Amino acid sequence: MVDSEGTRERWREIIFEAETPSGRRFDVVLLVLILLSVLAVVLESVPSVRRNVGEELYILEWVFTGLFTVEYLLRLWTSRQPIRYARSFFGVVDLLSILPSFVGLLLPGGQALMVVRILRVLRVFRVLKMVRHISGATVLMRALYASRAKITVFFLALATVALIAGATMYLVEGEAGGYTSIPVGVYWAVVTITTLGFGDITPTTQLGQLLTSVLALTGYAIIAVPTGIISSEISKIDGDESTLACPSCGVHGHLPDAKYCRRCGAKFG
Amino acid sequence: MVDSEGTRERWREIIFEAETPSGRRFDVVLLVLILLSVLAVVLESVPSVRRNVGEELYILEWVFTGLFTVEYLLRLWTSRQPIRYARSFFGVVDLLSILPSFVGLLLPGGQALMVVRILRVLRVFRVLKMVRHISGATVLMRALYASRAKITVFFLALATVALIAGATMYLVEGEAGGYTSIPVGVYWAVVTITTLGFGDITPTTQLGQLLTSVLALTGYAIIAVPTGIISSEISKIDGDESTLACPSCGVHGHLPDAKYCRRCGAKFG
Amino acid sequence: MVDSEGTRERWREIIFEAETPSGRRFDVVLLVLILLSVLAVVLESVPSVRRNVGEELYILEWVFTGLFTVEYLLRLWTSRQPIRYARSFFGVVDLLSILPSFVGLLLPGGQALMVVRILRVLRVFRVLKMVRHISGATVLMRALYASRAKITVFFLALATVALIAGATMYLVEGEAGGYTSIPVGVYWAVVTITTLGFGDITPTTQLGQLLTSVLALTGYAIIAVPTGIISSEISKIDGDESTLACPSCGVHGHLPDAKYCRRCGAKFG
Amino acid sequence: MVDSEGTRERWREIIFEAETPSGRRFDVVLLVLILLSVLAVVLESVPSVRRNVGEELYILEWVFTGLFTVEYLLRLWTSRQPIRYARSFFGVVDLLSILPSFVGLLLPGGQALMVVRILRVLRVFRVLKMVRHISGATVLMRALYASRAKITVFFLALATVALIAGATMYLVEGEAGGYTSIPVGVYWAVVTITTLGFGDITPTTQLGQLLTSVLALTGYAIIAVPTGIISSEISKIDGDESTLACPSCGVHGHLPDAKYCRRCGAKFG
Repeated sequence: MVDSEGTRERWREIIFEAETPSGRRFDVVLLVLILLSVLAVVLESVPSVRRNVGEELYILEWVFTGLFTVEYLLRLWTSRQPIRYARSFFGVVDLLSILPSFVGLLLPGGQALMVVRILRVLRVFRVLKMVRHISGATVLMRALYASRAKITVFFLALATVALIAGATMYLVEGEAGGYTSIPVGVYWAVVTITTLGFGDITPTTQLGQLLTSVLALTGYAIIAVPTGIISSEISKIDGDESTLACPSCGVHGHLPDAKYCRRCGAKFG
Repeated sequence: MVDSEGTRERWREIIFEAETPSGRRFDVVLLVLILLSVLAVVLESVPSVRRNVGEELYILEWVFTGLFTVEYLLRLWTSRQPIRYARSFFGVVDLLSILPSFVGLLLPGGQALMVVRILRVLRVFRVLKMVRHISGATVLMRALYASRAKITVFFLALATVALIAGATMYLVEGEAGGYTSIPVGVYWAVVTITTLGFGDITPTTQLGQLLTSVLALTGYAIIAVPTGIISSEISKIDGDESTLACPSCGVHGHLPDAKYCRRCGAKFG
Repeated sequence: MVDSEGTRERWREIIFEAETPSGRRFDVVLLVLILLSVLAVVLESVPSVRRNVGEELYILEWVFTGLFTVEYLLRLWTSRQPIRYARSFFGVVDLLSILPSFVGLLLPGGQALMVVRILRVLRVFRVLKMVRHISGATVLMRALYASRAKITVFFLALATVALIAGATMYLVEGEAGGYTSIPVGVYWAVVTITTLGFGDITPTTQLGQLLTSVLALTGYAIIAVPTGIISSEISKIDGDESTLACPSCGVHGHLPDAKYCRRCGAKFG
Repeated sequence: MVDSEGTRERWREIIFEAETPSGRRFDVVLLVLILLSVLAVVLESVPSVRRNVGEELYILEWVFTGLFTVEYLLRLWTSRQPIRYARSFFGVVDLLSILPSFVGLLLPGGQALMVVRILRVLRVFRVLKMVRHISGATVLMRALYASRAKITVFFLALATVALIAGATMYLVEGEAGGYTSIPVGVYWAVVTITTLGFGDITPTTQLGQLLTSVLALTGYAIIAVPTGIISSEISKIDGDESTLACPSCGVHGHLPDAKYCRRCGAKFG
């Protein structure tokens, strides 16, 4: 029993730890497996590929499913609170990465089966687990979190503009111009204000072209707003991280390699 | 009379205050009503929806109009200066959100009626009233206001470039290329410089393609200008907020290593 | 003679000064005239307009030309160094805004005449003269000037990428895909990397689509570079302008409304 | 022998040095030659040009090849470690700029020959050698290098979004909408999220248009992230450069109000 405890301990280290050598090796292998399995799902959707190597991909798919199933069971066995892990975001993602293959067996086939099969691309989310270990990620997360209020306001304003612009174009151009309803007009407005510009619906009247120009310039200028928000947040966070405070007089704004306080000249420890 | 005064007082609190619990509850209910009524107008414009549930939407529309009318009258009754409220921006918006429905009754129908009906999407502006309470909004407003001069200059320069480019393409490509007049050329120039790129009008000659490349690169690079303007403004404002306040006179914007208040000269503890 | 000298003096003040009341009034009137004359040229290019009010526009055009001619002669007469003014950038612009109309008289008509007539939109440049007086303009100019070296490097790199990408697509897609030559390929690459995306030429092969995705992501990411350059320049310039130095201890970084030095507490004059 | 040594010395100075007058003159001449040779390759790909002056371009091409060959041999002869130079990045680039012409002689012609001929546009990379001398370049390089971790995270997230979005549209719109496979769907997702918007594949169903709007708004907003990253890096680097250096130990990066060097503790005058 104790021995089995020891085994569980060792396995937990390998599976859940990212800092130990064995844990890192495990993560790398897993990462490669995930990417390969996603690639397989993607390639399988290409008609020509499916025709030629569909058989092989099917077998490969079950190999991946088998490996991920073993891994999932190991996680449940080794984790200290199996229930909590199973309910956690990544626990659900792990389950979702194997479920579709099994569900696929029960389905008669056709559209429903296809949907389930494609659900497997969700495995890509498992990659995000690894990303947490990259230093840059935390800064971006903090920046986005800190500016959520401003971003919300920005999107509310943007939605208002898109709604008004879409309704206006629906009036100005109407059915003839392809603006068959306000929703379609709003779709067009979003495509225009984001400077996406598919060109599937375009203004035909002179007034419509004038409104389009105004909308395009608006979108072109206000892209500056979210950019400004994120920029200032990132600078602030980077700033916080890159300056030290003096232990004796407490003055801030020392660069990381400072050895003496720029105010009182006290030597840093 | 006094009692009625008390009632008015209580109602004013509910309708105009956003900080009291009852006031906040009122705001939330109103927000939901506004969004639902706008959604109704939007859906009504979809042919299939109008065919199936047009009747229900018509009734629903009058329910919303009724509620908003009652609210508008309450605001007039409870506000201390009814005239000033009625003339204020949001007072006009409130009126505009009920007027179209009534005007619609007097109209024979057809295009005019449709225009009036769609005017009801303007109700969405009422949402902005709520936005004022989100902290982020004020910072964005201040940033945009502080950089209005620079933004104006930027748009003047942009308009000049678009005009010259549009006229040039009208000369280079001409009718054959779809550039039937300078206004059309300017419309194309705006679509190009904002990197919108609908593709409804595109250069066909080699010279035209060269000019397009130059214009696209210009637009691609100068988007940096408004972004830079807003970014620096937002950082400045955020900076002001993130700095010390004087304990004696309370003025903000002291750098972290300030020893004396820059306003009243009081020594910091 | 002296009197005439006085008249010249007075006229010079009105025409060249922008700070005196009369000078400002003159500038405003001129600005309106310029914009109207440009509008006339633009409208004249619209077939329907030309058909209906072509006659009136022709007369109007000569009124503007007359006024601008008088103004140009006044400037020559009143300026202290007529030759230097005539050779200055704005002197040439002023001349270019009247020349086309006169040259038009000598031309037989047709394309050449049309070109000359459209040259009159160059009058819009005269508006820039006024812009100089807007405070924001100087900051933008300084920011763009300070970052010219970085911008140059950025455009060199961009041009290199566009050239390589254009040549590659010419190889990958070839004539069949519409990439009939390397210049066309480069045009497409610029349209893609600036995220303009007209859609007049699009990849048809899978390899082409892959390359397009990579190029689009590149353009999407490196737009950050010029933006970052300009942002940091503008912040720097704004920073310089918005901080004072203490007259007694010389410490920098005081906000504009500082009354006391944050280091030594000395009162500002 | 010594004399020959002297000659080598002199040649090395001319070819490898960029600071000496002769070295700078050499660089300028070389730059012009490179650009002209690239221009020749580009023009040769235009059918009409090839028909008219193909003969002349062919001869010109060999002149350039000859000059670059002589230059390459001189570099090998004069450099102190010929092997190391030949293996260095720019050594390989120099070789690549002459190799294709010679390889072209051995090829039967057709596609293979064409590929080799177009490989000559790689000569443009040699221009980058000169760029190193522009001050701005180093700042950009440092900024991009410093933010590589954040940029990587950003692209990982972007790729995940594009993959999920592409797979979803493949399900929602399917073959009928032109989304013939997940790779095509991902191509479309990239074109949409980067706001490129070719319009060769566009949503036709209402659900598809809704998803497109969401994706477009996402791309429109998150462009702010890389921009913010680079902006803050560039400001940081510029900041370092624009701050004081210690008179005794010369370390940079002191804030304007520093009184003691943060490295050696020397008191500032």
